[in-house]
Amino acid sequence: MAKKKLGSIPLVYPIPIVLLGATVDGQPNFTEVGDCAVMGINPALVAVSLAATHHSTEGINAHGEFSVNFPNTAMLAKTDYCGMVSGRDTDKSRLFTVFGGELSHAPLIEECPVGLECHVLETVEIKHRRIFIAEVVQCHIDEAFVQTAGDRPTVASVNRLDPIIYALDNRYYRIGEPIGTGYMEGKRLR
Amino acid sequence: MAKKKLGSIPLVYPIPIVLLGATVDGQPNFTEVGDCAVMGINPALVAVSLAATHHSTEGINAHGEFSVNFPNTAMLAKTDYCGMVSGRDTDKSRLFTVFGGELSHAPLIEECPVGLECHVLETVEIKHRRIFIAEVVQCHIDEAFVQTAGDRPTVASVNRLDPIIYALDNRYYRIGEPIGTGYMEGKRLR
Repeated sequence: MAKKKLGSIPLVYPIPIVLLGATVDGQPNFTEVGDCAVMGINPALVAVSLAATHHSTEGINAHGEFSVNFPNTAMLAKTDYCGMVSGRDTDKSRLFTVFGGELSHAPLIEECPVGLECHVLETVEIKHRRIFIAEVVQCHIDEAFVQTAGDRPTVASVNRLDPIIYALDNRYYRIGEPIGTGYMEGKRLR
Repeated sequence: MAKKKLGSIPLVYPIPIVLLGATVDGQPNFTEVGDCAVMGINPALVAVSLAATHHSTEGINAHGEFSVNFPNTAMLAKTDYCGMVSGRDTDKSRLFTVFGGELSHAPLIEECPVGLECHVLETVEIKHRRIFIAEVVQCHIDEAFVQTAGDRPTVASVNRLDPIIYALDNRYYRIGEPIGTGYMEGKRLR
């Protein structure tokens, strides 16, 4: 098919939507972020990116800690709102039930099925962006989404976790149905 | 709801599945990666993570360039296969029609609706992981997925792009239906 060139556009899709938690001036703050990914399983690494001037960035710079909370689609309005207003003007922690984990400055959201406590290992500065690469210290998950298979816990289908997905068409999406299993679909090409 | 602690697990979900392209020993190589995210719009930044020993990592270290190609669900078997075998033993470029863009060492896949040419700005080494933070130099997209709205091009719905999504339950998923618009859903909470 003929291709078109769009220029310097980071058209990564789809994008997982998370609520990033930080402690800024002693207060929990939550902001909506799509710039988030796993960067390795062992060690358990994630990367997130924020603008240098972002309110949450102050808290992460100060404490080297943040949380990554995964809202479900029932939380869409509150999640979108967290991307619309700054913690400088609005106390967004009042939208949620906040709880603490093992770190002192990584506030977690009770209503989110999954929350990760993260400790910053490296900060990369590129122009106005601050990219934090962090180790996941603890993963909190609603009991209802954990199954025990043999001797270790497994996590429920992503359909049950019901995440919010985003794309650069500025729309939010739901997850669709499962279509295959890792390291199985390619076997017939061997 | 009561929470359970799973320990140091990077339970980020959902995960976009991409085919990372690199030139290794003069040959195009493609590997399946879930460790990929947008890290900023302007400048257009992405991050990807690979093991230091990965065949593609050699090519990226040597040339500071790679591509990020987004397969659709019709490409699931080939995509999964690219995560099962190493380019050291198998010429994976024969699975696809390969084309070149503006960079010399960022081979692109014709069959993928979207491909990004990326130039490495920073490499972060954490244990055996190599995290590449790169600027998107050019975004190639199938003409059929570009619409013109006013004076600038817009990209079709992610449903039409039909990406492959992955999660740590080791299953692949399809994208679901749109559920809202960015900076609109939160307005009623103002």
